[in-house]
Amino acid sequence: MDSGIQQERARRLRQLHHDPALLVLPNVWDAASARIVEQAGFPVIATASTAVAAALGYQDGQQISRTMLIEAIARITRVVDLPVTADIEAGYGSTPAEILETVRQVIAAGEVGINIEDSHPGDEDKLVYITTQVELIQALRQLATTLDIPLVINARTDVFLLGIGESEERFEHAVKRANAYLQAGADCIYPIGRLDRDVIANLVKAINGPINILGGPPSPTIPELEQLGVARVSLAGNIQRAVLEHMRTIVTELYEHGTYTTLS
Amino acid sequence: MDSGIQQERARRLRQLHHDPALLVLPNVWDAASARIVEQAGFPVIATASTAVAAALGYQDGQQISRTMLIEAIARITRVVDLPVTADIEAGYGSTPAEILETVRQVIAAGEVGINIEDSHPGDEDKLVYITTQVELIQALRQLATTLDIPLVINARTDVFLLGIGESEERFEHAVKRANAYLQAGADCIYPIGRLDRDVIANLVKAINGPINILGGPPSPTIPELEQLGVARVSLAGNIQRAVLEHMRTIVTELYEHGTYTTLS
Repeated sequence: MDSGIQQERARRLRQLHHDPALLVLPNVWDAASARIVEQAGFPVIATASTAVAAALGYQDGQQISRTMLIEAIARITRVVDLPVTADIEAGYGSTPAEILETVRQVIAAGEVGINIEDSHPGDEDKLVYITTQVELIQALRQLATTLDIPLVINARTDVFLLGIGESEERFEHAVKRANAYLQAGADCIYPIGRLDRDVIANLVKAINGPINILGGPPSPTIPELEQLGVARVSLAGNIQRAVLEHMRTIVTELYEHGTYTTLS
Repeated sequence: MDSGIQQERARRLRQLHHDPALLVLPNVWDAASARIVEQAGFPVIATASTAVAAALGYQDGQQISRTMLIEAIARITRVVDLPVTADIEAGYGSTPAEILETVRQVIAAGEVGINIEDSHPGDEDKLVYITTQVELIQALRQLATTLDIPLVINARTDVFLLGIGESEERFEHAVKRANAYLQAGADCIYPIGRLDRDVIANLVKAINGPINILGGPPSPTIPELEQLGVARVSLAGNIQRAVLEHMRTIVTELYEHGTYTTLS
């Protein structure tokens, strides 16, 4: 991709985290689903790692290779004229150097944003040390500066998702990580999990930057989340799950009755 | 794939063309859609080239590379325990040797059946000479024998789809090609197009082997096609189109109202 176009898309993606309107991301998994989201009018395309993996035949959790990841996101970026942000899980590497190489390839594939997690697949009972994650985010920011692409880093903290520590300590833990990640160069914080309205409102107040919330039922609706001050909502694997459920309905009718009612 | 398993799956696929029950193929495009079809109870997985191409971000008509085709079908074959038959359009080659190499790779990817067309992308106002297609089918049958895989060859004739010649001559033209292809080693004939019930009934009588009909509205239902003596029905790109239309409904609601009614 032309670097001027990529820089402009990165800046546009960053700005959308600061506009009054909430940035809504119906996460996609292939070129066809990305086109539907673009045609519906959304300003950004975001992938969901779980959905990309499922389309390729794998479980979530970095089971696909880095090459498969890069090829999958490149196919999406090729067909849309929008900023594309990629869910790269924990970075597809076992060392910081390997994770930086992943992000270098992600940027080369035309992406202008990433999601990066602070837990590792297969080691889900604990998080990466906060200092380690801070150093990684600093290095990612430095890499983006070196490549002259203002990459939008959405730093995920998995404190709530993985139920780390005692429940009454999670809020403070998540806020501490969030503010350290922002300080290190992250643009947005994603405290993923099913969170009550009150918790969301308090996170918005306590975190010194834009926050990303997991959307879809039973989460509050988009207007409600916007009112709470949330900057960005990800639908994650919810769109693909609903679409595949509809496919199940169609093919089950075909199998049981041989008719096309739900196909029409 | 173990060659014993692949041989058994090929034989099973061939037998399903001769059983009293119609073989119904809700064509898939990726590993996730293939799993839904397997879970619904269908005995065979078939790909649709148009749907595979769309998922990868391309138009139908051999716009993807042979490598992309092979990787896409291999990802599907990896996740199901059923016979898989691949739509390989006109064979992804400009010479018979190249088409044979495609089929060699398709078999190496674990497939046990193919669809092969008698028209070429970009040259859609005419068909391949009947003798040329007969020689290709003979060579494909010979290749399968050499590789010791009883490959199921579904030979498509595009006489109706492309509106070749005068309309009153198409039936005889299609039947002539069909019987020549069967004689050359094809297992089933696919006279693709939107065909009236009477035409289907007459094709079943005039063609000396199993025939494949394009299903989905406005075609007759599966029980009706079974009664007409059809052996196999392909839903082609219809399943993916319906699924993406459902996705469009979900994301449009999300865009316009910020709610999750159709997502639930």
